[in-house]
Amino acid sequence: MLMINLERTSERMYEWMERTFRKARHQKAVLGLSGGLDSAVVAFIAAKSIGKDNLEFVKLPYRTSSPSSIADADKVIEMLGVKSRTVDISGIADAFTASLPAVDPHRFGNILARIRMTVLFDIAGETESLVLGTSNKSERYLGYGTIYGDLASIINPIGELYKTQVRDLAKFIGVPQEIIDKKPSADLIEGQTDEGDFGFSYHDADEILDAVFDEKKSKLDVTNLGYSLDLIDEVLDRVRFNEFKKEIPYIFDPRAL
Amino acid sequence: MLMINLERTSERMYEWMERTFRKARHQKAVLGLSGGLDSAVVAFIAAKSIGKDNLEFVKLPYRTSSPSSIADADKVIEMLGVKSRTVDISGIADAFTASLPAVDPHRFGNILARIRMTVLFDIAGETESLVLGTSNKSERYLGYGTIYGDLASIINPIGELYKTQVRDLAKFIGVPQEIIDKKPSADLIEGQTDEGDFGFSYHDADEILDAVFDEKKSKLDVTNLGYSLDLIDEVLDRVRFNEFKKEIPYIFDPRAL
Repeated sequence: MLMINLERTSERMYEWMERTFRKARHQKAVLGLSGGLDSAVVAFIAAKSIGKDNLEFVKLPYRTSSPSSIADADKVIEMLGVKSRTVDISGIADAFTASLPAVDPHRFGNILARIRMTVLFDIAGETESLVLGTSNKSERYLGYGTIYGDLASIINPIGELYKTQVRDLAKFIGVPQEIIDKKPSADLIEGQTDEGDFGFSYHDADEILDAVFDEKKSKLDVTNLGYSLDLIDEVLDRVRFNEFKKEIPYIFDPRAL
Repeated sequence: MLMINLERTSERMYEWMERTFRKARHQKAVLGLSGGLDSAVVAFIAAKSIGKDNLEFVKLPYRTSSPSSIADADKVIEMLGVKSRTVDISGIADAFTASLPAVDPHRFGNILARIRMTVLFDIAGETESLVLGTSNKSERYLGYGTIYGDLASIINPIGELYKTQVRDLAKFIGVPQEIIDKKPSADLIEGQTDEGDFGFSYHDADEILDAVFDEKKSKLDVTNLGYSLDLIDEVLDRVRFNEFKKEIPYIFDPRAL
């Protein structure tokens, strides 16, 4: 079931955050705010669980980042009263492209994600903090994200929630409606959206993924939810193609001889 | 037992490499060569298992990288007849330090490791290759390495071999003796060595780690190998302190409610 008990889930999530920070022997966290839904939700969760004084937000704009993304990040910063800083990554990105031949847009997106990871972990090192992750379960299943980039973090409270569930949770915990309503986008190219890249909606993908992987339904059963076999196969092919990202790194174990 | 059957281990390792590349549906690999022992061993293993024509080596020097490291990397390249390229990361590193406040040497080391990871994965994207990992079991246990930096890869054949075992294997598969003999170093500061940073040798650490974690011996039993309780505690404290790196990212699972 995609529908979750929001009160219960959020409470347990707060407890889990406190417990996990204790286990990792840290009090503080650093979070990259993109202006999008996922990082906004993690911001609200972190402010409530570990406390706003233990948090620092980082805006990591690139030259072409949309002004509305930055404005949405600012709204979250203001609402939560958390300290923040901005690191413009344009110069770093330029240094990469100057050293690498003919970087195409897909590779460039991965470079930006890894620059942001590197900056966030450096600030974490400077401030003795842990880096919060913001990848959701839909992105992780569909392989929409950069390994060792935005998929990399120390603590991720939403990694086992589908986008649909993150959206439901966002409303429940008070994330501004305009952030909930906007189309998910990597904010790399104007007009680009996640769902445009996929060719299907998060809602449909989430229902299919939940039915197949969580409810263990057969493909035939999933067609009864109203989805074509073509769409189901498209979603599952994506999962299969990206499955290896979950297991990396593959490490040879001589004891398994 | 630290002593492994080198013939059997290397044969199984080659088979595992071939099987793992098939599973990951790739033929080609890219490997960063530092001039050190670990990347040299992985270079020899990869050349033998997936073939030299499926390999590309990348030298990733920084301004202060020692000329002897580069010369040792060149020796491996020449011996194996594998194509290679060089990406000097000094300009990229400068761009990071220009954007981040007062980066200390420890943080700077992490930044360099993550720049190298980012460059290697970009070249892997360009050439449809997988990135080979070179972190050994000693480094992984002792937390000597950068998460999402040098610890990040797709396929790592030596990650479950202690440094001592990697050294034994190196000799067996024909890595040049001068690379085997030199002191392990991150090559960040002249004269810096891993063992100087630790305050103990890989040999001692490996015997202690193997006894405790693989042979499940008690601390008292390990003192019978000739190690002081102080040294044993020092090694095990390091492992405990770095244990969290093995489990990251921590992800909240609402189904575990």
